[in-house]
Amino acid sequence: MADYAYGPGRNHLFVPGPVNIPDQVIRAMNRQNEDYRSPAVPALTKTLLEDVKQIFKTTTGTPFLFPTTGTGAWESALTNTLSPGDRIVSFLIGQFSLLWIDQQQRLNFKVDVVESDWGQGADLAALDYKLRGDPSHTIKAICIVHNETATGVTNDLSAVRKLLDKHRHPALLLVDGVSSICAVDFRMDEWGVDVALTGSQKALSLPTGLGIVCASPKALEASKTAKSVRVFFDWADYLKFYKMGTYWPYTPSIQLLYGLRAALDLIFEEGLDNVIKRHTRLGTATRLAVEAWGLKNCTQKEEWFSDTVTAVVVPSYIDSSEIVKHAWKRYNLSLGLGLNKVAGKVFRIGHLGHLNELQLLGCLSGVEMVLKDVGYPVKLGSGVAAAAAYLSNSTPLIPSRI
Amino acid sequence: MADYAYGPGRNHLFVPGPVNIPDQVIRAMNRQNEDYRSPAVPALTKTLLEDVKQIFKTTTGTPFLFPTTGTGAWESALTNTLSPGDRIVSFLIGQFSLLWIDQQQRLNFKVDVVESDWGQGADLAALDYKLRGDPSHTIKAICIVHNETATGVTNDLSAVRKLLDKHRHPALLLVDGVSSICAVDFRMDEWGVDVALTGSQKALSLPTGLGIVCASPKALEASKTAKSVRVFFDWADYLKFYKMGTYWPYTPSIQLLYGLRAALDLIFEEGLDNVIKRHTRLGTATRLAVEAWGLKNCTQKEEWFSDTVTAVVVPSYIDSSEIVKHAWKRYNLSLGLGLNKVAGKVFRIGHLGHLNELQLLGCLSGVEMVLKDVGYPVKLGSGVAAAAAYLSNSTPLIPSRI
Amino acid sequence: MADYAYGPGRNHLFVPGPVNIPDQVIRAMNRQNEDYRSPAVPALTKTLLEDVKQIFKTTTGTPFLFPTTGTGAWESALTNTLSPGDRIVSFLIGQFSLLWIDQQQRLNFKVDVVESDWGQGADLAALDYKLRGDPSHTIKAICIVHNETATGVTNDLSAVRKLLDKHRHPALLLVDGVSSICAVDFRMDEWGVDVALTGSQKALSLPTGLGIVCASPKALEASKTAKSVRVFFDWADYLKFYKMGTYWPYTPSIQLLYGLRAALDLIFEEGLDNVIKRHTRLGTATRLAVEAWGLKNCTQKEEWFSDTVTAVVVPSYIDSSEIVKHAWKRYNLSLGLGLNKVAGKVFRIGHLGHLNELQLLGCLSGVEMVLKDVGYPVKLGSGVAAAAAYLSNSTPLIPSRI
Amino acid sequence: MADYAYGPGRNHLFVPGPVNIPDQVIRAMNRQNEDYRSPAVPALTKTLLEDVKQIFKTTTGTPFLFPTTGTGAWESALTNTLSPGDRIVSFLIGQFSLLWIDQQQRLNFKVDVVESDWGQGADLAALDYKLRGDPSHTIKAICIVHNETATGVTNDLSAVRKLLDKHRHPALLLVDGVSSICAVDFRMDEWGVDVALTGSQKALSLPTGLGIVCASPKALEASKTAKSVRVFFDWADYLKFYKMGTYWPYTPSIQLLYGLRAALDLIFEEGLDNVIKRHTRLGTATRLAVEAWGLKNCTQKEEWFSDTVTAVVVPSYIDSSEIVKHAWKRYNLSLGLGLNKVAGKVFRIGHLGHLNELQLLGCLSGVEMVLKDVGYPVKLGSGVAAAAAYLSNSTPLIPSRI
Repeated sequence: MADYAYGPGRNHLFVPGPVNIPDQVIRAMNRQNEDYRSPAVPALTKTLLEDVKQIFKTTTGTPFLFPTTGTGAWESALTNTLSPGDRIVSFLIGQFSLLWIDQQQRLNFKVDVVESDWGQGADLAALDYKLRGDPSHTIKAICIVHNETATGVTNDLSAVRKLLDKHRHPALLLVDGVSSICAVDFRMDEWGVDVALTGSQKALSLPTGLGIVCASPKALEASKTAKSVRVFFDWADYLKFYKMGTYWPYTPSIQLLYGLRAALDLIFEEGLDNVIKRHTRLGTATRLAVEAWGLKNCTQKEEWFSDTVTAVVVPSYIDSSEIVKHAWKRYNLSLGLGLNKVAGKVFRIGHLGHLNELQLLGCLSGVEMVLKDVGYPVKLGSGVAAAAAYLSNSTPLIPSRI
Repeated sequence: MADYAYGPGRNHLFVPGPVNIPDQVIRAMNRQNEDYRSPAVPALTKTLLEDVKQIFKTTTGTPFLFPTTGTGAWESALTNTLSPGDRIVSFLIGQFSLLWIDQQQRLNFKVDVVESDWGQGADLAALDYKLRGDPSHTIKAICIVHNETATGVTNDLSAVRKLLDKHRHPALLLVDGVSSICAVDFRMDEWGVDVALTGSQKALSLPTGLGIVCASPKALEASKTAKSVRVFFDWADYLKFYKMGTYWPYTPSIQLLYGLRAALDLIFEEGLDNVIKRHTRLGTATRLAVEAWGLKNCTQKEEWFSDTVTAVVVPSYIDSSEIVKHAWKRYNLSLGLGLNKVAGKVFRIGHLGHLNELQLLGCLSGVEMVLKDVGYPVKLGSGVAAAAAYLSNSTPLIPSRI
Repeated sequence: MADYAYGPGRNHLFVPGPVNIPDQVIRAMNRQNEDYRSPAVPALTKTLLEDVKQIFKTTTGTPFLFPTTGTGAWESALTNTLSPGDRIVSFLIGQFSLLWIDQQQRLNFKVDVVESDWGQGADLAALDYKLRGDPSHTIKAICIVHNETATGVTNDLSAVRKLLDKHRHPALLLVDGVSSICAVDFRMDEWGVDVALTGSQKALSLPTGLGIVCASPKALEASKTAKSVRVFFDWADYLKFYKMGTYWPYTPSIQLLYGLRAALDLIFEEGLDNVIKRHTRLGTATRLAVEAWGLKNCTQKEEWFSDTVTAVVVPSYIDSSEIVKHAWKRYNLSLGLGLNKVAGKVFRIGHLGHLNELQLLGCLSGVEMVLKDVGYPVKLGSGVAAAAAYLSNSTPLIPSRI
Repeated sequence: MADYAYGPGRNHLFVPGPVNIPDQVIRAMNRQNEDYRSPAVPALTKTLLEDVKQIFKTTTGTPFLFPTTGTGAWESALTNTLSPGDRIVSFLIGQFSLLWIDQQQRLNFKVDVVESDWGQGADLAALDYKLRGDPSHTIKAICIVHNETATGVTNDLSAVRKLLDKHRHPALLLVDGVSSICAVDFRMDEWGVDVALTGSQKALSLPTGLGIVCASPKALEASKTAKSVRVFFDWADYLKFYKMGTYWPYTPSIQLLYGLRAALDLIFEEGLDNVIKRHTRLGTATRLAVEAWGLKNCTQKEEWFSDTVTAVVVPSYIDSSEIVKHAWKRYNLSLGLGLNKVAGKVFRIGHLGHLNELQLLGCLSGVEMVLKDVGYPVKLGSGVAAAAAYLSNSTPLIPSRI
């Protein structure tokens, strides 16, 4: 089997998804198909549905493992809870929130788009204003991307919940956690999130192919009356098969089920909170490197800094897409492009998923060389030094090796 | 990683999907994630889109590789070509046509359901009648399952085309080829099929996860005005990215792309027509065994015999689901259950995908032992003998080994 | 990566080694290299050395995991326990005992070759006679192949031990268990075996690459004074590293260590005695098929029947190597050739390792078709029927699935 | 399957073997056993034997692929060409040359040990002297380790050849190329090497398990009269099977054969000379980092610098084994221990095999953090900066991506 662009040594995968898969997960997925109607697959599925709740920090939610991507998970979240014409408030802060809003509009919802500059978080003051102005509860849902992957901005979901509570507003809270869940603190129950969703190829560190959606009891209730047309993405079909104990209305990927089992096992072995701490550590180190290089973070305030992706602003005389191309062509380093409004202006370092300190430092040293190659006067070693200074003080011993 | 029901030796997978994966494909998929926006993934995708047309026998069709299952492929076929309220004719001949009709109805089409006894093919006389009675062309599409997996019935698509031509009827012809394409002769261009679709876990012998949809120029044209709501399954988004040369509106499974490449390479190495002949051979052998056992084929006439799955009717004093359970529990043999109307009455032998003569004979000898175990007075060896007599006369030498 | 002779469907591997590898073992070996001097590899090795004793049924033996084949394991057994010129008694009953004797002679031992007809077991009367005639104990070792893979003959080791005991003879008992251990009852301690050895690609169902040698305390003692030249195969180097707790005098295969771990885990999950029973079952079924075909077993008496390999004698007008070629070329079935004296006269069915009933029946149905193809008047289905009649009465339910 | 010391993210493997395996090779090896007597395995073997000559830069040599390790390859080189009591000259310059000498002595050769300080190359003046003093050609062989892995010293083989030629001395030239071949320029034919050998787990980047030995016509001639006892390692058995076209006197590892095929394909795709240049680049970068850290290279002169491994001398107040332990425990970084005379005094960075620039920079940044952790006053980023400055000027674009 050809590889379409062979280079010696390992590919350094630092796009913000798909991310590096642990060898253990690759092994678990290295397998034949199985009859999904035998007793073995439901037994496996049952453990997955139970255990996957932990990554959402929910005990009351109901998870669905759709054979789809994040885009499909979005569609499932919306069509199961809302009816055509429903008014929703949605925050536009980057390319992925933009795409979700596009989907919301094409699904015929009335979307109040609340826009921020790309690099800023969701405009919660605007939300406050809208909620205050909606005593009759015409707003049916708030849609928010927890972590905007295009700009490296993490929104404060607890603040959103507080606003809803303050106004005693019953709108559903629908959250895209695609690039946050399993990497950034996410508390479905505590924050009253009604639908949370993620994709397997992000912090879960699997191949693409699972859109994982978790619905609160309130969201499940809403699904009984939501009139949006849906079949493939319908929760009702899943719930029917959950009741029967066979779990699958149509054929799942056997490989991804075993992969998810392995991925969850690794996360639980490390401890979800340690996984989150590791992401904080790697995100902080990356930001220190960017600072040392004299470059700007696309994220405009510290409160929004993302621990899973850093969008780095390049000087106006450099085209950031050249950086991405060059990194791949010369150093086998995969960085994220700037998208849409920030195309050419930023490149992105994804630092999520199955990743450790030295992998990141290798990437940062690569970025330094690329910056030099494209004409930016970087001091080689400067970013690595700044990151390493922090990491050497904060990296714990590996528990299994003490 | 636990396997949930370990037994010594190999699992004998004879459900009609998911099917046995070639080792070459498992190897090709045994890999890390990659940046799907690098030049390598579009280069690979381009070859796949070009080559996958061959399995549909089309040169004019446009294929889409959706990260979904057959159920999602159905939804894509319907929502891209039709508008709510559109009248369609759909044939109900078994569980999978039933599920597709259910989807059609939930997507708000007006479905003329043409029902046959389970075990019979589509009632084409009824279609003739309906087309004749529709001079104003209120019928927008004919939906037909090429091979009904629940009963082992293959419909005659060329006859459907002849009827449409005879009546000069412009209705679209939408075909579920999930359990036929790559195994049974399928001629998209010659038969004027407008949308054909399959799933990766069937005769392509991959894991679940790709819903492959191929649209004729007429179907593409229809998609421009079709008003059904769709986002994830929208062809327009794909076409936009095809034009840009990046191909993917959202993240594909890197592993399945390389897997599809390997699967197509194997099919082309064997020769698609040789693959089809192999399925005819295995299907015929299976039917001879069933006859030798003194059991009835659920398929009522020879013209409908399926070369990918055989539904075997058991005597009324036996519950066919006991056969399936027992086969799995004692012989590590996975057979297909009877579904819905034929639950308890038939069990199914899937003989599609990456499979050869001795694998099938092993399965048939297993079925014999199970039949004996559940109290059916089978003569051990009788079915195997009948199948082997035929196979020993018809199996060619393996070309690479001559 | 090219496969050099692709055929559709699965290869049916029925040579008496290398044998079918369980998917679990393939998965376990699907991995990167590791530093073998880190604490992880010794920790793994320690469990392997402890657990591997169980397959020899010894508590007092010391195992060595040589990165070699069975031929290397032979050399290790001999050179560590004997000195040039030492007299040994060795039984010639087929190709593999012949090769071992050749090695013994080239290593400069004085070999009393005790020959039997190929198809008979070791001539224990001759041994009795030799022991009786050796009151001064000039015989230093008895070398015996437990299961002669070329003829399908299993020798009675307990009888050998009884003769040694009867004559109070201190000769070492060196046993080739390459095609018996893990498949046929083997009791190192009970039978007073001094060196037992096997290869990973046989009943352990791993790839080739480990020669596993187990030495009794008496053998270890002998190794202190044995004067045969040895370095790579020297136990002393291993013992030195065992003491240090690092275990490896040179680099082991990381993949095979993890593979051995997985292989042992599967054997222990099934239960070693159940594994042995399964081999008895498959061996018996094979012999019943051979009988039903009207063919002769190369093994001349029931007491020597091997449960891991059956050598089938063909009529004189057939060249058995044509059977082997044809099986591979037409049915993707790999059978064993007749070797040396029985070349052209027998073909061999290996039925050892990770294998179950339906795999064997698929093989037997293939053999029937091949026999017909080469002109032997076999009744198709006859052997399968005979085997199935026995298997359907003797195959237990799979414990994990009850 | 348990991993015995799980840590998040990738293991950074920088021991001088076993080294990082390319994903393509892991994939190629992810496979079932096969019958090695079928026509497919000899066909594959034939291409391997032909192609493997290229890594030795020989057209006249005869290669042998022993299922063994480097230690076994040593034994094969010696026992096939020499007789007990033969006088040989052997250079002791570090742990691996020491072990080879130990083997030579245990195999009963009369070894003139020519010792150098550890950190120096072979004492060629001493060789000159010995050759001059041996007009009657009592010296039968010169044994030399091309690259001493313990100290990072590469010997000048062309100088050895010149001395032999100068004195018209017919001694065989036996070379351990375990940590040089495929990474450092090696010219078997040009330098008149008589036996060259390597192990699969070194620069070939495979798992352990193949000892590859290549014999010149003169060495083959010598093997006809060499009286050392050998069976497993005997070339004659191989040559007999080469002639028959079946190639294997005993069972090879099917997986390693396919792995070797993939490994050679990758090396040829990159170009052997480009592979060697890459090693020069990575070796140079490593040495620049060591210098920047203010540490000493164990190798005492530039002419001996090794491009596959760098032994770094630590200050006397630091125990180098603490560095190795700590790197593994905190950063998942595997470094090489100091061995024997330099235990505690040096740690080693292996930079051979399938490796690229950013992997190395990640390692170097890790070494910096470890040095800081153990109390050495390193300036973080200093080594990385020095290495990157060099690499950013010398790393070529990846040809397949231009």
